[in-house]
Amino acid sequence: MSAPSPSAVAALLPNLRFDRDGLVAAVAQQHDTGDVLMLAWMNREAVEATLATGQVTYYSRSRGKLWRKGESSGQTQRLVELRVDCDGDALLLLVDQTGAACHTGTRSCFFRAVRGGKLERIAEPIVDPKTLYGAEA
Amino acid sequence: MSAPSPSAVAALLPNLRFDRDGLVAAVAQQHDTGDVLMLAWMNREAVEATLATGQVTYYSRSRGKLWRKGESSGQTQRLVELRVDCDGDALLLLVDQTGAACHTGTRSCFFRAVRGGKLERIAEPIVDPKTLYGAEA
Repeated sequence: MSAPSPSAVAALLPNLRFDRDGLVAAVAQQHDTGDVLMLAWMNREAVEATLATGQVTYYSRSRGKLWRKGESSGQTQRLVELRVDCDGDALLLLVDQTGAACHTGTRSCFFRAVRGGKLERIAEPIVDPKTLYGAEA
Repeated sequence: MSAPSPSAVAALLPNLRFDRDGLVAAVAQQHDTGDVLMLAWMNREAVEATLATGQVTYYSRSRGKLWRKGESSGQTQRLVELRVDCDGDALLLLVDQTGAACHTGTRSCFFRAVRGGKLERIAEPIVDPKTLYGAEA
């Protein structure tokens, strides 16, 4: 990704429609494989921090503060491209994920699927979740 | 997709964590290309209808009712697989999208990207939006 400029933020923000909590949904997708890794939330400051640093920063609803992905676990997300949907209330983040996106240690948070009338685990942890900080979800 | 059974619904629902509006976020991804098509919302009835029919049904927040994707536009989504994230408040729908997922006529709703300090259109409509019903967003 080319270095994000202040103009990128200025161009983007008027096109975002934050909800009543000041948030937009953000879907992280591994840029080269297409794997959808997780869905989280961003407020205005998280969007700004992500564009300014190139490291994906969300807003943690449970902790009520900015959450730089991987800041405690080391499982960072480097931003490759930020996309916006038609009505501006959802972002698609093409990222390069280090290790596991999920706090449970799986590569993707979407590790369960409905198959054969059951909810099945379809992926195992690639990182021992005990080595991650459990607080980061 | 194999025919969804009532047991699939029974297995899934206790694992979902609907928000204060009774909704979970749902990301639709084209099953074979990996393209992320859109983000929308489902309530309990939408999840049930999607599993029962194999046709993706969302909950329209703007219209306050179930919205069977493509019911007016013809741009339907056939469910291939439904996945759930770690904390149960987001779904990943692997789908087979007919035509355009977006009400603007583009294949994906994420047709704008931050590039070079600007918000750029990166995809053109594949269906004339005038032929779609504008109410379906």
